Amino acid sequence: MSSPALSVVPAALADDLGFLLARASATALRATNDALRDTGLRSRHYVLLKLAAEGDGVPQRRVVDDLGLDPSAVVVLVDDLERRDLVERVQDPGDRRTRIIAITSAGRRLLRQARPLADTTMDTLLRHLGAEQRQELAALLGEMLEAADPKYH
Amino acid sequence: MSSPALSVVPAALADDLGFLLARASATALRATNDALRDTGLRSRHYVLLKLAAEGDGVPQRRVVDDLGLDPSAVVVLVDDLERRDLVERVQDPGDRRTRIIAITSAGRRLLRQARPLADTTMDTLLRHLGAEQRQELAALLGEMLEAADPKYH
Repeated sequence: MSSPALSVVPAALADDLGFLLARASATALRATNDALRDTGLRSRHYVLLKLAAEGDGVPQRRVVDDLGLDPSAVVVLVDDLERRDLVERVQDPGDRRTRIIAITSAGRRLLRQARPLADTTMDTLLRHLGAEQRQELAALLGEMLEAADPKYH
Repeated sequence: MSSPALSVVPAALADDLGFLLARASATALRATNDALRDTGLRSRHYVLLKLAAEGDGVPQRRVVDDLGLDPSAVVVLVDDLERRDLVERVQDPGDRRTRIIAITSAGRRLLRQARPLADTTMDTLLRHLGAEQRQELAALLGEMLEAADPKYH
């Protein structure tokens, strides 16, 4: 039961989407980090593993764009996963300068273990929203991101 | 014009609300920091100023909860604003142990300057969403936050 006296969102900020996004994101990140503790992954590793599991892998450059991180931060994340043999860096046969991050079979096994943990956590966080509202939330965020000036991606 | 070939949201993550929230939040933060540059404020200072402008001010402890930051990070933010005479720490007359962060008149003037800059930035980021969709987005995020386990706030 939540206390009706104490609102999580202060009235002054109830329509401030910048604030709401920051709070919601921080909440999801903490909960997911907690849920993934036994896997030794943090949220960002998990997202990177998901990207690396698509098709033949993901170009390292693309990971930088997709995660919205500095290239050096992505290198650290990839190093973390490579050290545990969860991904490998392979050369793109079509472009010698491009490194592809590809998931290994150990990575796939860990991803199969991590995915329900992360999904259950988000399900719990979003338990008051129906399936349709969740899709609506994902669609609204996607629209916002697609329309944003690329320099802020 | 955005290139239709390059989607901001990778297909593997289009329904991953944790990822979407993190990306949307980072995008809003960067854009708002940019918009506020001339005020010398960053997004978090701005949110703190808004909280301090409510009623007689906001208890420092409440700022920690509202911003979802460590107490030490909040102290640094309050110090930043106090140094510029934008807020002051006052003792709660009803509870000697409670410090209230109250906005000063200089703080109010800067907030009046900052608010349209931040609002315009979010308007630009959200320009593809109608007023109703924005309210829907704020309501969905608010519901998620109100329902989240307090340990992740």
